[in-house]
Amino acid sequence: MNVSYTKNQQFFSSKRVDGGVASRQFAETYQSIRQHSINLTVSLSVEDMAVQSMPEASPIKWHLAQTTWFFEKYLLARFVKDYLPFHPAFTMLFNPSSGMNLPRGQRSVITRPTLTLVRTYRTHVDNAVMALIKNMPDEAYPILELGLQREQQTQELMLTDIKHLLGSNPFHPTYINKPLAPAEKVATLKMLELRGGQADIGHPGLTFCFENELPKHRVFLNPFAIADRKITNGEYLAFINAGGYSETRWWLEEGAEWRQREHIKAPLYWRMIDDIWHEYTLHGLMPLDLNRPVCHVSYFEAEAFARFSGARLPTEFEWEFAANSIIPELPGLPGLPTLTDAPVDANKQMEELILHPKGASSATGLKQFFTDTWEWTSSSYAPYPAVKLKNDAAVDHYERQMVNQYVLRGGSVATPPAHSRITYRNFYPTQTRWQFTGIRLARSII
Amino acid sequence: MNVSYTKNQQFFSSKRVDGGVASRQFAETYQSIRQHSINLTVSLSVEDMAVQSMPEASPIKWHLAQTTWFFEKYLLARFVKDYLPFHPAFTMLFNPSSGMNLPRGQRSVITRPTLTLVRTYRTHVDNAVMALIKNMPDEAYPILELGLQREQQTQELMLTDIKHLLGSNPFHPTYINKPLAPAEKVATLKMLELRGGQADIGHPGLTFCFENELPKHRVFLNPFAIADRKITNGEYLAFINAGGYSETRWWLEEGAEWRQREHIKAPLYWRMIDDIWHEYTLHGLMPLDLNRPVCHVSYFEAEAFARFSGARLPTEFEWEFAANSIIPELPGLPGLPTLTDAPVDANKQMEELILHPKGASSATGLKQFFTDTWEWTSSSYAPYPAVKLKNDAAVDHYERQMVNQYVLRGGSVATPPAHSRITYRNFYPTQTRWQFTGIRLARSII
Amino acid sequence: MNVSYTKNQQFFSSKRVDGGVASRQFAETYQSIRQHSINLTVSLSVEDMAVQSMPEASPIKWHLAQTTWFFEKYLLARFVKDYLPFHPAFTMLFNPSSGMNLPRGQRSVITRPTLTLVRTYRTHVDNAVMALIKNMPDEAYPILELGLQREQQTQELMLTDIKHLLGSNPFHPTYINKPLAPAEKVATLKMLELRGGQADIGHPGLTFCFENELPKHRVFLNPFAIADRKITNGEYLAFINAGGYSETRWWLEEGAEWRQREHIKAPLYWRMIDDIWHEYTLHGLMPLDLNRPVCHVSYFEAEAFARFSGARLPTEFEWEFAANSIIPELPGLPGLPTLTDAPVDANKQMEELILHPKGASSATGLKQFFTDTWEWTSSSYAPYPAVKLKNDAAVDHYERQMVNQYVLRGGSVATPPAHSRITYRNFYPTQTRWQFTGIRLARSII
Amino acid sequence: MNVSYTKNQQFFSSKRVDGGVASRQFAETYQSIRQHSINLTVSLSVEDMAVQSMPEASPIKWHLAQTTWFFEKYLLARFVKDYLPFHPAFTMLFNPSSGMNLPRGQRSVITRPTLTLVRTYRTHVDNAVMALIKNMPDEAYPILELGLQREQQTQELMLTDIKHLLGSNPFHPTYINKPLAPAEKVATLKMLELRGGQADIGHPGLTFCFENELPKHRVFLNPFAIADRKITNGEYLAFINAGGYSETRWWLEEGAEWRQREHIKAPLYWRMIDDIWHEYTLHGLMPLDLNRPVCHVSYFEAEAFARFSGARLPTEFEWEFAANSIIPELPGLPGLPTLTDAPVDANKQMEELILHPKGASSATGLKQFFTDTWEWTSSSYAPYPAVKLKNDAAVDHYERQMVNQYVLRGGSVATPPAHSRITYRNFYPTQTRWQFTGIRLARSII
Repeated sequence: MNVSYTKNQQFFSSKRVDGGVASRQFAETYQSIRQHSINLTVSLSVEDMAVQSMPEASPIKWHLAQTTWFFEKYLLARFVKDYLPFHPAFTMLFNPSSGMNLPRGQRSVITRPTLTLVRTYRTHVDNAVMALIKNMPDEAYPILELGLQREQQTQELMLTDIKHLLGSNPFHPTYINKPLAPAEKVATLKMLELRGGQADIGHPGLTFCFENELPKHRVFLNPFAIADRKITNGEYLAFINAGGYSETRWWLEEGAEWRQREHIKAPLYWRMIDDIWHEYTLHGLMPLDLNRPVCHVSYFEAEAFARFSGARLPTEFEWEFAANSIIPELPGLPGLPTLTDAPVDANKQMEELILHPKGASSATGLKQFFTDTWEWTSSSYAPYPAVKLKNDAAVDHYERQMVNQYVLRGGSVATPPAHSRITYRNFYPTQTRWQFTGIRLARSII
Repeated sequence: MNVSYTKNQQFFSSKRVDGGVASRQFAETYQSIRQHSINLTVSLSVEDMAVQSMPEASPIKWHLAQTTWFFEKYLLARFVKDYLPFHPAFTMLFNPSSGMNLPRGQRSVITRPTLTLVRTYRTHVDNAVMALIKNMPDEAYPILELGLQREQQTQELMLTDIKHLLGSNPFHPTYINKPLAPAEKVATLKMLELRGGQADIGHPGLTFCFENELPKHRVFLNPFAIADRKITNGEYLAFINAGGYSETRWWLEEGAEWRQREHIKAPLYWRMIDDIWHEYTLHGLMPLDLNRPVCHVSYFEAEAFARFSGARLPTEFEWEFAANSIIPELPGLPGLPTLTDAPVDANKQMEELILHPKGASSATGLKQFFTDTWEWTSSSYAPYPAVKLKNDAAVDHYERQMVNQYVLRGGSVATPPAHSRITYRNFYPTQTRWQFTGIRLARSII
Repeated sequence: MNVSYTKNQQFFSSKRVDGGVASRQFAETYQSIRQHSINLTVSLSVEDMAVQSMPEASPIKWHLAQTTWFFEKYLLARFVKDYLPFHPAFTMLFNPSSGMNLPRGQRSVITRPTLTLVRTYRTHVDNAVMALIKNMPDEAYPILELGLQREQQTQELMLTDIKHLLGSNPFHPTYINKPLAPAEKVATLKMLELRGGQADIGHPGLTFCFENELPKHRVFLNPFAIADRKITNGEYLAFINAGGYSETRWWLEEGAEWRQREHIKAPLYWRMIDDIWHEYTLHGLMPLDLNRPVCHVSYFEAEAFARFSGARLPTEFEWEFAANSIIPELPGLPGLPTLTDAPVDANKQMEELILHPKGASSATGLKQFFTDTWEWTSSSYAPYPAVKLKNDAAVDHYERQMVNQYVLRGGSVATPPAHSRITYRNFYPTQTRWQFTGIRLARSII
Repeated sequence: MNVSYTKNQQFFSSKRVDGGVASRQFAETYQSIRQHSINLTVSLSVEDMAVQSMPEASPIKWHLAQTTWFFEKYLLARFVKDYLPFHPAFTMLFNPSSGMNLPRGQRSVITRPTLTLVRTYRTHVDNAVMALIKNMPDEAYPILELGLQREQQTQELMLTDIKHLLGSNPFHPTYINKPLAPAEKVATLKMLELRGGQADIGHPGLTFCFENELPKHRVFLNPFAIADRKITNGEYLAFINAGGYSETRWWLEEGAEWRQREHIKAPLYWRMIDDIWHEYTLHGLMPLDLNRPVCHVSYFEAEAFARFSGARLPTEFEWEFAANSIIPELPGLPGLPTLTDAPVDANKQMEELILHPKGASSATGLKQFFTDTWEWTSSSYAPYPAVKLKNDAAVDHYERQMVNQYVLRGGSVATPPAHSRITYRNFYPTQTRWQFTGIRLARSII
């Protein structure tokens, strides 16, 4: 069953079967995903898309441009004869690695090109890609696929960056003008026991995946237990009320220093107003909902909470093994929407968006593996065994980020629907909080 | 003669003579100055006005709002019965001192209110002020005057902040699309000798001035010499070429540390391109013009250059004494434009703007006292003798800034025409470079 | 065979066999190890032992005190009836975790107690321990063992801290006045291939080990190759000469930033003098010996060198597996000195000390696994599977350090002779250079 | 009368009258002052003299060496034929300006040379100076004088640096084992009114002074009032208890930021213990004595207190004018001890040292001008008019420090007895607190 998760990831797997049908389908998929990025900006002002609220968060305008740059540089410049770049400067400006040696925190300084010009750039590139798709050589498909996968990754960043910006505004503006209904009451947390043993980890590689998911390989796992759902705001509040943030023994040493230096006392978007805890969400400020999963906690906070609970965080291998073990047991797991079969109506999607974790439904708690919040694992981000070094300019040198970061697994409310899979590895430094990050507990069985 | 400089400063001095004529004139002056702020933004994109390129530089949008806030808070809220503020939040947001405890470097984060709303705010307030002017009590005039003087101060900041933003863009966008002609060749610098003795310093206070210019008081000056013009790019380049930036003996100790820590090797907007020095200006990038005054140097650089030249910077008292002594000797000094008599046509002003120092004209070098660049003095910014502490909410607590800053005198190309006077005291910390700051030498005579 | 490595670690394993003989032997071991710490200070001035050259390096005086505190707090206070602490303040001052909330970088500020008093403290505690040993309850032995193991750990830190201090002195003082002979020429590096498969990792726990080596558990290893010796200065110099420090593609992103920010251009103690590379050693400054192993490199540098070499660093599991696989094949592996059988004559040890990596001998290159330099592995420091959380006050909360650090394996010239074992896990943050850290390459076999 | 203050400063003024008597007297003066530096260390351990508790405070060992270096470099190397320096390295190491490019905060790293060697260095140099004095050319006297004046300056720094070190030790060690008696009750503070007018400022230059006191020149002063004594701990406590540290309006903007960033809530050595304010002194910790002058406050704190009190700090010119005006009116002002007439017995001095401000005696409050604590003035440290630039290697380039520092006048308990004079200008950055700094109020009279 879990195959369906990875299968869905491949936008263009049927290419070789029937060129005519396929290319029409591909064009629709391309348009739908590209349009979704634009859709995400409908409620934003030009200013919202121009500034950055911290060095780690990029301007939305920059996100719109750098994803476009990818298609221009790796697809059009390679496969379209005599392709004329939209503007020579864009080639340097929107390369995330070089960016004309502009430090990441200075991206907002590039007020020109304006948003208007960046949108023209998108249209220009989209038209050229659509023309290319009609008659595209086979070796271009992986690039197209990669570009769209990156576009989807970026869509999640657009949401987290805009949440950080609006959440820094003292007036708590909303991104989506639709209040949230109270969440269902969650059931008591249960620990599911798994035997472990030899386990296959990583992606088989037949369909699309990022390189950090390769190669599929074997690990040995000891018996362990893993929680059947994420930790809730209510459970996390109990930790706070028990003095969790001031008891050093729960914290990693580096975490204790971080907490003290940064005056951290609660998750990123919690606000104490008139003695009542509130949470800022993309739907606005609301009283803290105790049944929703805790969100926007750092690795340090997740780890301290786990220690306080007499548990620990799972390794990324335990997480992947658990997801593989548990999901098939569910009757009628709906699966993720399949872009291949029926391209998503992006506009309709926007109307229905709920961009705040809603919590474990009593019926299908296990869907939480791919929803609500990413889950911190205790695994430092490292290459899988037998990885080969690459120097291919078409790929990101992802190994160069593999130090002092920790792996997150699953997906969040901000992850595009068809962008999750069991083998997906997200990763951030330990103090990161502006992503939708949550907690699932694990425990060793001896 | 120098009285004319201070007289010009008073927009509303004739009020009491003839209410009808006066109030019409006042309305025109108010509109003209307020309009000029808007005029300054005609070539800017929404993005240009939303971001800040460093913590010291504010978003243009914020400048437009905070000047408006002043009129609303100190004029309308006091003198208009039942005045309803435009928006309660604006009262807190755009107070430069409080700003909802938002650090200065975070002003760009307030993407909402948008620029559109801020411009509506301006119109709303302007309409109310225009209505009030028709029948305004006497005690409101000083507030109106103060608000307009602050608006003019802000206009200079708008230009320096936008120059810093555009100058940080790797593509050197222009603010004004009009190339500059080469400057006239400057004459050899001459040192004018002055006898000193007792001198009156400060503003008499009968017309408008800022509080830091009060009270007029007496100081004793030793004989000194002062340069008849500012230092040019050519002279400054000779300092650089002589190794000036690496010879510690020319530098204040703190300046030497600053220079090393910040890797300072030339004035802020100098760019070495293909082994040729260029200068970024609001009119675009151009080869360094050796006859123009050096601009955008810190106090540390000005002081080091002076020491290298066997001279020193003047004190602010020497500067004021020299300006008073020298200017009357000039036949037919044209004086500054007088707003009172003929309100400036702001649109016409824009067409004629030249926003880069053009250098000492051979005929009237002494006008350079009020043009081109501010001039660093060696005087630490401090209250004049016999100043009384104020706790009047209508005034800025300017004394609270009187530490670790140095006085600049004169005015620059970015200073609004009627906003200069001999007693004017500008002030910045020693490492400041984004203002239009230059150098005039002095020397003691023994 | 590798059992011998771990067996040697147990100072007191025979306790239960024969109390009389054993306790005499234990007393000798205790004295010998404690005396060695004092021996290490014979060439130091009081000043050398009082200051710290950076926050990470502690004063030698503090090292002498904090090891003593351990015996007082966990041994004497528990097992000696009515034991009176030497001084109540010492209990707080020399607890490495609390230290009266004194930041680590402020330890030198505690000039009082003086060195003289600290040495009196040592004598006081040593006398009490010697008296206790004569009639010690069984449950005290693990504490005594742990205290001595920690004393040995500290002896390595004393050497690295004193090297950093003397190495910061512009006059290159020597710690040991004995020049080093040139190293033997090393043979060409060979990669040894290993099949991998299931492997037991970690310490069996029957004899002494630190808690981070527990529990013994199984991992699955892919085939890999590992170098038969460490990287030499000569090989590392080739990396430098090939522009290795300025080519971003070899470096982890965080490493590239670190290198640039800190102006790193060579290993920590390399000095370019008159265009010739020298190396500062505890035996003084000497021309760089190309046959010696490169030492004092950060994880970032080790990782970049490996990437440049088309290889990678081994994981800690590969390292342990390789050490276990290779060492038994060597005929007549001498084994480490056994304290249990013949207590080391500490004074004689001092005379013979060579505290600089000497390189791979042609005969027994594999001894290099435990000599010369620690070896960076690519493994982030993390708990072994099935570790249980402890809250026992007698043990260090070692898990609290398990984040953003990388494991080093083996041992160095500064490691006390009987303090190495195959399962030993050392760990430091990625930018660490003042420890004796070196490089062994590995490669995946596919 | 005030002449006596400056006259006393000249150790060697009578030289030219009678060589024989004079040179014996000079030798005694030299020995007495040099010995006093050593005397100040009698209660210190080697460790106390080796470390530095913050970058601004130097190791005592370094102080002993750098004063000696001055005599070697500027006196012996110039006036003793074939003088052989004690050690070539010392010449670089102990030059306060170069110090081998060692940052000031790294001085403690130079553990070698040891204290023992530094004391040998002192003896070596002292012997050579004593030999030279017997037959010294006239032009050497000013150098000898300058060296001794610098030695005395350094003696004050030794005390402030040692106080900062011991005061950072959680056990509050004493420097002098002699408890302090309670201070006399102070009388109500009175403001003395002075007419001002033209005033001569600066040193006439006939006897010794530092260059920053030159030249004597005229200033114009408005009428002002100045307090007849310093502010007491009791008065300062009232400021604290009135919420003075949290009310922004009393503080300079930069001061408010400093206070918040550094969590400043009271003078440097105040300690709240069991709800009772204590003060750490060189005589140990004691309950806060409300009658003693407040000490160890920054310029920011002094300025805020003055504003809170409806007053201001005096300018340095007002201070000097007031000291000149007031002191002669006192009957029988004792004058400072005259080294010239009877060299001080340094050992006896040590016995009698009281190194904590004792407060205004009811009889001779005005002696407080030169005792207890330095007094912050509102004057930024700047050159006097008509100062000429010097490039003489024998003098410090004192002008290079003249930026962003404020002048302190008077003297403190830590100032050597014969080292005060009315024209003396001490100076520190605004956040400085470890010097003995206090507050005297002033006010303008209009």
